[in-house]
Amino acid sequence: MTAPIEFWFDFSSPYAYFAANEIEERLKRFRRPILWRPFLLGVAFRETGMGPISQAPLRGRYAIHDCRRIAGMLDLPFNLHEDFPFPSQALARAFYWLEARSLETATNFAKAAFATYFGVGHDLREPEAVIALATEFTDRPDLLVEWLGDEKAKRVLRERTAEALSKGVFGSPFVLVDGEPFWGWDRLPMVEAWLEPPVGLAKARGELAAADESVR
Amino acid sequence: MTAPIEFWFDFSSPYAYFAANEIEERLKRFRRPILWRPFLLGVAFRETGMGPISQAPLRGRYAIHDCRRIAGMLDLPFNLHEDFPFPSQALARAFYWLEARSLETATNFAKAAFATYFGVGHDLREPEAVIALATEFTDRPDLLVEWLGDEKAKRVLRERTAEALSKGVFGSPFVLVDGEPFWGWDRLPMVEAWLEPPVGLAKARGELAAADESVR
Repeated sequence: MTAPIEFWFDFSSPYAYFAANEIEERLKRFRRPILWRPFLLGVAFRETGMGPISQAPLRGRYAIHDCRRIAGMLDLPFNLHEDFPFPSQALARAFYWLEARSLETATNFAKAAFATYFGVGHDLREPEAVIALATEFTDRPDLLVEWLGDEKAKRVLRERTAEALSKGVFGSPFVLVDGEPFWGWDRLPMVEAWLEPPVGLAKARGELAAADESVR
Repeated sequence: MTAPIEFWFDFSSPYAYFAANEIEERLKRFRRPILWRPFLLGVAFRETGMGPISQAPLRGRYAIHDCRRIAGMLDLPFNLHEDFPFPSQALARAFYWLEARSLETATNFAKAAFATYFGVGHDLREPEAVIALATEFTDRPDLLVEWLGDEKAKRVLRERTAEALSKGVFGSPFVLVDGEPFWGWDRLPMVEAWLEPPVGLAKARGELAAADESVR
């Protein structure tokens, strides 16, 4: 199987920051490409009636505490900008522009964006900040500036977001392995178990399909 | 440290079923008592604006799939009753009646309740079903029948639920270790790491207190 593993996320999601830092290391032994897929979580929220967890009563305070705890556990810097959560349109649009040129470059840009926003604590809301970050990854930032002002950039991101929703992606991070959905940073060990099944999960794989049918 | 680890849950929560099956085994090496604490999640939902995940668009379908997958992984039976999610008042009130007589008996009753509802798939909404289950755990079911009709039973559960909320418990399962909150079955490995800290988490323990202060 060489179909890519899809890694969906919103750049404004701290749990996606943690997943972005771990996913390659955790999955590399399966030798499958990982396709990084930014989308707009806010659009999914409209479908599910959810909102940013950080703004929810009780849960919000817990989530930020939980993120600091995870950062400590993974030994990652975590400096939450006061603008959090932020609209990540410019970042996601820049990602897809870079991706059209090189998948690897776009992935490296995504990692740099997470490290900059959640690690260093620099805001990446405005196109100017995104372009400044992207200059490390392209020798034609002028074309990127043009792209970010273009209607096409909006359309591409809208299409990706629609694709996410059509695949049942409603949170961030969200991993799809041959259609099997895994929501959350904390499901990465389960993605591993799914790809390299122990007895229990191997059993589940067969039974799940039948069980899902029964609730249709 | 011999203060108990608090294990809060609603009997209607499938993730609590998984946690109930794992928590003792995972934590026994720390030799701390585990205090089982049923409460009414619906009351917490009113505070947080959340609702039963199983009834949420997209997420609900995912959650049930996720539960079947976890059950497969843990090799646990999982047969979801059509009455799910159910009001767990009678079960929780019976638990506290048993607990006043024996902590251990109440814990065993809780395990039996989870196994009956989520494993076998028998409904436990009505007091009659709860009493039938409890006859294994008491030689005075007549007194339990009386209790379940008593205003005091309601008051005790109301007080426990208020205690949960006052401690910041807003989901199920929810573990408190000396006040440190862990939400979800998937945080049990983190509870272990917290109690037996590796380098990263030990570092986090000190930094977290300071960070939480800063957002107050």
